[in-house]
Amino acid sequence: MAEGEEVKNKQVLFRNYVDGFPKESDMYVSTENTIRLKLPQGSNGVLVKNLVLSCDPFLLILMRKSDHGGLFSCYTPDSPITGYGVAKILDSRNPKFKKGDLVWGITGFEEYSIITDAESLFKIEHTDVPLSYYTGILGMPGITAWAGFYEVSTPKKGETVFVSAASGAVGQLVGQFAKLMGCYVVGSAGSKQKQELKYFPEGIDIYFENVGGKMLEAAILNMRKHGRIALCGQISQYNLAEPEGVKNLMPVIHKGITMKGFMVLDYCTHYSKFLDILLPFIREGKIVYIEDVADGLEKTPAAFVGLFSGHNIGKQVIVVSRE
Amino acid sequence: MAEGEEVKNKQVLFRNYVDGFPKESDMYVSTENTIRLKLPQGSNGVLVKNLVLSCDPFLLILMRKSDHGGLFSCYTPDSPITGYGVAKILDSRNPKFKKGDLVWGITGFEEYSIITDAESLFKIEHTDVPLSYYTGILGMPGITAWAGFYEVSTPKKGETVFVSAASGAVGQLVGQFAKLMGCYVVGSAGSKQKQELKYFPEGIDIYFENVGGKMLEAAILNMRKHGRIALCGQISQYNLAEPEGVKNLMPVIHKGITMKGFMVLDYCTHYSKFLDILLPFIREGKIVYIEDVADGLEKTPAAFVGLFSGHNIGKQVIVVSRE
Repeated sequence: MAEGEEVKNKQVLFRNYVDGFPKESDMYVSTENTIRLKLPQGSNGVLVKNLVLSCDPFLLILMRKSDHGGLFSCYTPDSPITGYGVAKILDSRNPKFKKGDLVWGITGFEEYSIITDAESLFKIEHTDVPLSYYTGILGMPGITAWAGFYEVSTPKKGETVFVSAASGAVGQLVGQFAKLMGCYVVGSAGSKQKQELKYFPEGIDIYFENVGGKMLEAAILNMRKHGRIALCGQISQYNLAEPEGVKNLMPVIHKGITMKGFMVLDYCTHYSKFLDILLPFIREGKIVYIEDVADGLEKTPAAFVGLFSGHNIGKQVIVVSRE
Repeated sequence: MAEGEEVKNKQVLFRNYVDGFPKESDMYVSTENTIRLKLPQGSNGVLVKNLVLSCDPFLLILMRKSDHGGLFSCYTPDSPITGYGVAKILDSRNPKFKKGDLVWGITGFEEYSIITDAESLFKIEHTDVPLSYYTGILGMPGITAWAGFYEVSTPKKGETVFVSAASGAVGQLVGQFAKLMGCYVVGSAGSKQKQELKYFPEGIDIYFENVGGKMLEAAILNMRKHGRIALCGQISQYNLAEPEGVKNLMPVIHKGITMKGFMVLDYCTHYSKFLDILLPFIREGKIVYIEDVADGLEKTPAAFVGLFSGHNIGKQVIVVSRE
C-alpha cells in the first residue's frame, strides 16, 4: 500500500458499559471505518500498524461505568477498546521514533492506530525473541511479576511462596522467579485454588495475590508471621457488581503482615534493568513462557471473555498481522 | 499486713464467652477468694500488688470463644480477666525483680496476682511521671503509637496524616507525634468519624487505622498515591459476630498503597530507645496525655463496656490502690 493511502481499518469496538461478567456481545468487530496511512496535520503522535495485542483481565475495569477515582478513563461506546500491544511505526512526528521502528505500549484493538501519547511507548531493541513476548514476559505482565516479586515482596532464599492465578501472564513468571531464587513455591489455578493451601503446613511467607475475595481471605489465614502479600490483581472480583469484602484483617494485625498494592507504571523507569535480567533468562531457557495465541482481531471477544472462565492456557494474545 | 498473711483478694472474674457487644454482666466482681502474700513453693514467678489496670479494647477479643489462630488464649470463665497494669513486687523468685520494685506488664484484674511469666514484665525506673502512664503513654499503647507511626508509617515532614479513634490511648499519641514531626494531622473520634475525611482535599499520605470496616473503606478511597496505612486495631469490628468486609481493595492496588499490620510485641525490644524519646517529651510538656481514671476494681465492667460506646475521654484506667 502507498503512503497516505486510505485503507479499511478493522476494529474491535466497545458496545456498552458492562455489569458483572463480560459477554462476547459487549464488543463487536467492524470493518466500516477507514484510515489514511499518514498522520493528520497537527498531530504530534505516531501512526502504527498493530501486530500483536494483549488480552488482559484489567480491560474489564475499563468496561465498567466509573470514574475509577480519576486514575484512568473507561472505554467510550462505539470506539475501539485499547490495551497493550506490539506495533510498527508507519509515520512519526515524535523524535523518539521513526518509520519502521517496533514499539510496545497502549494501542487500539484495530489494524491501525494513531497514538497521541507516543511518549508512553517503549521501543523494541531486541528482536531475537518473539515479538509477542513484549505484550507479556518482556512487557507489562513481565515488569509486574518482576516488580511484585523482587521489589514488593522482598523475598529471601528458602521462603515459602504461594502464587494464585499461577497459569496467567503474571503468575507463571512469579513462580519461576521464586524458584530461581531458591524459594519453595506452590502455584494455584482454576476453581479449586484454595485447596493448594494445604501444601503450606508451616505457613506462607509471600503470597502473590492475583485473585482477591475468598482466596485472599484463605491466604491471610495461612500466612506466617511477618508475611508479605503483594496485591497485584483481583480477577475474581472484576466480574462482580460489588466486590466481596475481605473480612479477616485482624490476622493481618496479629501476624504483622504487610499487604502492598503496586502498579506496574511505578516501575517502568527500571525497564532497562529489567531487560538485562530477563533477556538472558529467556535466551538460556531458564524461564519457560507459555502463550495462548488467537489469530485475527475477530477472535478478541471470545478470547477476552474466556479469560474469566479460565479458557486460556498461558498468556492470551491476539495476532493482528504477522508481517 | 504481715508477710505470708492470708488476705481477701477482690477480683474481676469473667462470666462467659461473649457474642457481639460486651455487657457489664459479662464480668462480675467477687471478694470470695483469698491469697497468701507469699509465693507458693515451686513458683519461679513474682507475687504483685496491682496498683493501676488498663481497660483496652483488645480485651474483648479474649472474651470471644476462639483459638485466635493459636496467637493468644481467651479468658477462662470464673477466672480473673487479665490485661496490662502497673504493680508492686511483694515477693519474687525471679532474679530480675526484688520486693518493692515497680513493674508493668500483663497482670490480673484483682488486688494481688501471681505472675508466672515474670520475664514479660518491664521494671519501672522513672517515677517522676504518674505511674498510670506505664499502662498508656509509657506502656503498650505508647510503644504501639510510636512503632506504628515512626517505624511502620515512614512519615515525612509535610505529609498529611489521618488518625481514627483519635481520642483513644493510641490515637491521641499518634496525632501528637505527627504534629511534632511537622505533618498536617486530622484526628477523628466518635460516630461521625468519616466526615473528617473532608479535611483532605488532596488526599491522605498516612492513615493510622484503629477502627476498621466502613471507616477503613472510606479512608482507602481518600488515600493519596503511595499512601501508607498502619493497621493498628479495628475497634468497630470487635463487637460484631462476623466482621464487615473491606470491599475496595482495588484502589490499594491502583494507588500503590501499603497496608501494614503490626503487633506491639515485635517492637518491645526497642523499649529503652522509646523511653529516651518519650520521657523528655512528657517532662517538657511537648506531649499532652489525657486519662480517664476510674477508682476501684468495681468500676471495671462499666469502664470496659463504656469503651465501645465512646464514654471514655482519654485512656481508660482503673486505679486499684494508691499506696
